[in-house]
Amino acid sequence: MPIITIEGPQISKDQKRKLVGEITKTASGIIQLPEECFTVLIKESDHDNVGVGGILLSDKESH
Amino acid sequence: MPIITIEGPQISKDQKRKLVGEITKTASGIIQLPEECFTVLIKESDHDNVGVGGILLSDKESH
Amino acid sequence: MPIITIEGPQISKDQKRKLVGEITKTASGIIQLPEECFTVLIKESDHDNVGVGGILLSDKESH
Amino acid sequence: MPIITIEGPQISKDQKRKLVGEITKTASGIIQLPEECFTVLIKESDHDNVGVGGILLSDKESH
Amino acid sequence: MPIITIEGPQISKDQKRKLVGEITKTASGIIQLPEECFTVLIKESDHDNVGVGGILLSDKESH
Amino acid sequence: MPIITIEGPQISKDQKRKLVGEITKTASGIIQLPEECFTVLIKESDHDNVGVGGILLSDKESH
Repeated sequence: MPIITIEGPQISKDQKRKLVGEITKTASGIIQLPEECFTVLIKESDHDNVGVGGILLSDKESH
Repeated sequence: MPIITIEGPQISKDQKRKLVGEITKTASGIIQLPEECFTVLIKESDHDNVGVGGILLSDKESH
Repeated sequence: MPIITIEGPQISKDQKRKLVGEITKTASGIIQLPEECFTVLIKESDHDNVGVGGILLSDKESH
Repeated sequence: MPIITIEGPQISKDQKRKLVGEITKTASGIIQLPEECFTVLIKESDHDNVGVGGILLSDKESH
Repeated sequence: MPIITIEGPQISKDQKRKLVGEITKTASGIIQLPEECFTVLIKESDHDNVGVGGILLSDKESH
Repeated sequence: MPIITIEGPQISKDQKRKLVGEITKTASGIIQLPEECFTVLIKESDHDNVGVGGILLSDKESH
């Protein structure tokens, strides 16, 4: 613990590596807990499965 | 914010479109916040990954 | 299953009652599963614990 | 309700069957609610999508 | 990792202790990962904030 | 979207402000989406409700 879950678009492995590294370092510094305590979960959502303002993201993009 | 997450079975894109539209409209009316504020996440679970009453849904269906 | 989680502001018990009833009815009709299968979880977030666009909601409101 | 979510590595169907059965039985006995009330969701994470201590699990394994 | 989240009713500290201990032991044995890897999060829901079959649990109990 | 959820210990409002600001900036830069798209949810867990390695955090601290 702590556990940071990032729900977002599909991203590259390199972006995941950076995200995990930098988010952990930033949160560790602010929360004042060692980096080893932190778990980061990346959840990549398909734009058919996300709605903002009542509209599927995939529909927004195809307009 | 608000964020509505729907964990359920695999459904068609049209069902997702309706779900996002109608759930956002319903929740917006009750919570009294504009539809633009709402994010809806649809999580489709494989029936091998869901248990109800201690039994996998896929096992329930194959009996 | 399905499970619908609503992360949002603090609301009244009556709004919760309506939210649970109407969201269940709407989702049941679209997903074509009986209402009895549906669980709805309401998570009320304090505006000190929510950030949008990098700013705490409570700070946005106090400006 | 209750709902138990297990975020972990990819596992076999037989492990899922055991996990759902035994976790439900254990939790039902301790919480004192019938097994029928319990839903278990299994979320299998790819090791590219999990970071511990600021490092992707897949990178840890390839070292 | 793995992370097990238990959404359920309010329970005593002793039940939490047993839940964390026994769920971790059971899951560790089935998933074949050491107990030290496991994090368990207990989320106690107020019955005003949970709906099953479209009805608030607190309303079901008061009938 | 994206949505970043941080499950961790109780922290001060100032830490929350920093966490929301810096995590959003970091993630926005790596994922290449504008900061306005990001929602951050902070979930503060009581140490009676978190187990690591099968032991409640509150029990670990009292030993």
